Amino acid sequence: MPTHFGPSLGPRQGEAGRKFANVDSPKVTARSVSFLTNREQLIPLLPKGFELVAEPVVTVEITYITEIEWLAGRGYNTLGVSFPVVFNGKKDHGVGSFLVVLWENLTDPILTGREELGFSKIYCEIPEPRIYQGLTHCTAGWMGFKFMDLKIWNLRQLPTEETTAQISKQGGDGILHYKYLPKTGDWGKPDIAYVTLTPSANPNQVVKEVWQGEGIVQFHKATWEDLPTMFHIVNAFYDLEIKEYRGAKVLRTIGGKDLSDQRILQ
Amino acid sequence: MPTHFGPSLGPRQGEAGRKFANVDSPKVTARSVSFLTNREQLIPLLPKGFELVAEPVVTVEITYITEIEWLAGRGYNTLGVSFPVVFNGKKDHGVGSFLVVLWENLTDPILTGREELGFSKIYCEIPEPRIYQGLTHCTAGWMGFKFMDLKIWNLRQLPTEETTAQISKQGGDGILHYKYLPKTGDWGKPDIAYVTLTPSANPNQVVKEVWQGEGIVQFHKATWEDLPTMFHIVNAFYDLEIKEYRGAKVLRTIGGKDLSDQRILQ
Amino acid sequence: MPTHFGPSLGPRQGEAGRKFANVDSPKVTARSVSFLTNREQLIPLLPKGFELVAEPVVTVEITYITEIEWLAGRGYNTLGVSFPVVFNGKKDHGVGSFLVVLWENLTDPILTGREELGFSKIYCEIPEPRIYQGLTHCTAGWMGFKFMDLKIWNLRQLPTEETTAQISKQGGDGILHYKYLPKTGDWGKPDIAYVTLTPSANPNQVVKEVWQGEGIVQFHKATWEDLPTMFHIVNAFYDLEIKEYRGAKVLRTIGGKDLSDQRILQ
Amino acid sequence: MPTHFGPSLGPRQGEAGRKFANVDSPKVTARSVSFLTNREQLIPLLPKGFELVAEPVVTVEITYITEIEWLAGRGYNTLGVSFPVVFNGKKDHGVGSFLVVLWENLTDPILTGREELGFSKIYCEIPEPRIYQGLTHCTAGWMGFKFMDLKIWNLRQLPTEETTAQISKQGGDGILHYKYLPKTGDWGKPDIAYVTLTPSANPNQVVKEVWQGEGIVQFHKATWEDLPTMFHIVNAFYDLEIKEYRGAKVLRTIGGKDLSDQRILQ
Repeated sequence: MPTHFGPSLGPRQGEAGRKFANVDSPKVTARSVSFLTNREQLIPLLPKGFELVAEPVVTVEITYITEIEWLAGRGYNTLGVSFPVVFNGKKDHGVGSFLVVLWENLTDPILTGREELGFSKIYCEIPEPRIYQGLTHCTAGWMGFKFMDLKIWNLRQLPTEETTAQISKQGGDGILHYKYLPKTGDWGKPDIAYVTLTPSANPNQVVKEVWQGEGIVQFHKATWEDLPTMFHIVNAFYDLEIKEYRGAKVLRTIGGKDLSDQRILQ
Repeated sequence: MPTHFGPSLGPRQGEAGRKFANVDSPKVTARSVSFLTNREQLIPLLPKGFELVAEPVVTVEITYITEIEWLAGRGYNTLGVSFPVVFNGKKDHGVGSFLVVLWENLTDPILTGREELGFSKIYCEIPEPRIYQGLTHCTAGWMGFKFMDLKIWNLRQLPTEETTAQISKQGGDGILHYKYLPKTGDWGKPDIAYVTLTPSANPNQVVKEVWQGEGIVQFHKATWEDLPTMFHIVNAFYDLEIKEYRGAKVLRTIGGKDLSDQRILQ
Repeated sequence: MPTHFGPSLGPRQGEAGRKFANVDSPKVTARSVSFLTNREQLIPLLPKGFELVAEPVVTVEITYITEIEWLAGRGYNTLGVSFPVVFNGKKDHGVGSFLVVLWENLTDPILTGREELGFSKIYCEIPEPRIYQGLTHCTAGWMGFKFMDLKIWNLRQLPTEETTAQISKQGGDGILHYKYLPKTGDWGKPDIAYVTLTPSANPNQVVKEVWQGEGIVQFHKATWEDLPTMFHIVNAFYDLEIKEYRGAKVLRTIGGKDLSDQRILQ
Repeated sequence: MPTHFGPSLGPRQGEAGRKFANVDSPKVTARSVSFLTNREQLIPLLPKGFELVAEPVVTVEITYITEIEWLAGRGYNTLGVSFPVVFNGKKDHGVGSFLVVLWENLTDPILTGREELGFSKIYCEIPEPRIYQGLTHCTAGWMGFKFMDLKIWNLRQLPTEETTAQISKQGGDGILHYKYLPKTGDWGKPDIAYVTLTPSANPNQVVKEVWQGEGIVQFHKATWEDLPTMFHIVNAFYDLEIKEYRGAKVLRTIGGKDLSDQRILQ
């Protein structure tokens, strides 16, 4: 929407229907911190057909993206929260990370990402990180309320072989999403409700550097007045017990894909 | 989305399912300029089932909203383009304004407005107007590219009786929208495509002031590099011939509704 | 500076040396909260020649300014902290408010205000207030750190006579400032250090409304990392004991002056 | 100012008087384009005692700075315009670049830079560059008016030896500034007016990469309404004839100095 001007322009559609190669673009620095929490606290976040697999380890990843082809070279930032799941549908089976929410600081990719792909994207402010005396400090906020601090330190770069190993270990089938769009007038009922998958293959993405270190992440308790559209989401993360940190990671990559391989799992 | 944390909070859903009264909230200053254009230029913008009625008069309205209850007292601004149409569906018939696009400078209401209501909302920057020596100058832009100037002058306030008359003249059945959401993976096909109506009744809205005057509106030609997600929309308005201006209006209102009376027309 | 292009343009200098009348401009909404504190805590903030007079009552005032003539109709916001003093110089004597700091959310008037007038202006973010269910909530921050909350409620409008009385009671000789500019290379030494006065007369300013009510103000303790250029200022206010609140006030005015009557007190 | 809370914190003063080492900080990417113009157009910009030397080549340099120690790891951007001059004072002689204006997108260093050092710093918005298909596109604006585009392409990296040669060629004695601060009340008269020098020595600065290429720079003609505090500065650059471009350069450096070696030239 508005579709009467032609299809929404964005990552999968440029001027005059042009596709984007994503070969030397975009450049991404992804910083993440993982922690072990309680199974019981993650289970309520699972849509029907999803189950936890392996340990209940939550990963909070913040990415700073530049030189994006479909934005004519501009950039934006994202903040995602995910944990490992399996989805058992009527026809399909998928193992991967369930991306329970993905904040982005630009509306345009939020719209196409939600509607075309089923990503649970919402908006927040994600300023550039502060890097000072070996500490990287990332934050996220909304209209003056800072709801997250993520700090990373003691970073050491991995040699190339380990890097490749690191990456191939990841992913399973890919990233799992629950696409849900409401029906107008019939409040509380969906028009659309299905599971989607971002397949893990990403042939144009080149990993330039991987760094490992220590980190912490803190979500800050919010009132409805602070965050009237998302205090419940932030507080769900605030409430998660952090039983043990599982380290921090910084990844620098170039290249990617337009996600037109996104598909429905049934 | 994310629906696994509960329904999206927004205008129709507060903390713990609370509804908003919208009695002394929000406060809106709406500034608009209308012009006569060519029927032939508007027809391509009509979805199936829509027809132009009366003269092809386009209205560009920019609103500055404060003291919004569902945002805990914050505000945001909007910029809409509409013209009079009739919709003849299989079952339903509706006469009103077709809102071809509504820019807003806050993502949160864009998401619920698109998905719950079918408004063609997208994002842009809408700074506060400049008011200087009797001229009000409104602008809209995106990441550094100003795509619209709207100027209003020679304003004179209407007496109360005329005000009431003005308002009741408006509207027909209400505002018409075309809700379209794409199907994941089946690119180019819709998951949802239907017409929705915002009924014109707005019992809590009190018109405090109506001013009439003269005005102009200019959309600025954009390249894909300038506006990679919406140059085609802005250029469609840039291309519209302005055959004759039909005056400017400033409306100050208090109160409104949560739009939960939005419904599908079939 | 840069003076090689001609004198700095701003409130006292428009295009081609033009002066501004400030008759129907600007429009100001000033919200303030006052509280009684300890004399001992204010005394260290006094430059040489200054003494406290009357009770040690601190006023925190936040103003939202629109339709500013010298900004071609744009607006900006300010946050000031002041208390009553007397200045006894070698030649001059002045009674009034000492404006210990004035934050503004626009750099341009900060520069001319500091250098031409001697106002202790520095920068911060001052978003529009939230107004919700009878409570007005104002905030100020810097690069993601919110350092102040000011809340006002129970407002009742004063009748016109009281309004006039209110205003004439104010002010004494005016607002007192300490202008200090450092000498390059001779670190720690001033190039300029003198007291300036903003005379209280403001003949073009028309008070449209005065409201009185209750209010609170909270400064938030900051680290150097949070506010590397002003944590010491914010913490000085955080440390002030609030012995008793002395009420809140909202003032709406139109018109003003260009402050070219600012003068040095010796 | 406000000096009653202690000296201004900034690049030369941290918490409790701490100095900053600037060894691995900041990280700077400087992009510049130079062009030949007319001597006659630069001469009016010269303060007393200054003369042009060599060719009238103007350099427009835009820098993107991150990991700044005195900002606890934050960053900001700058846009400067300079050309080669000689200053012949009563006592001192200096050869270098005259920095006629330096825009910055953060107020805090503007204040200390103007007042402590005599840099002609003013404010503008400097978004991150767009980098797309080999073209780097930098822009600068103010409250919605984009006043400059700078584009660089065909970049090739220089080998290390050339890099060192490049850098040592630069600079002469350093960067020259004209510090001018007005006297309150005695409008049009200075309180301070002298020349300052930023010596070229910068022992902690390590040049990591130098790239050379082609580029253009365009200033856009502004009205007083567009840029009420600086249309005259922007238009002075707009008016400069571009007789010949002299290439573009991208420099990546780490480390720097706190500029406490800044001194007055008499």
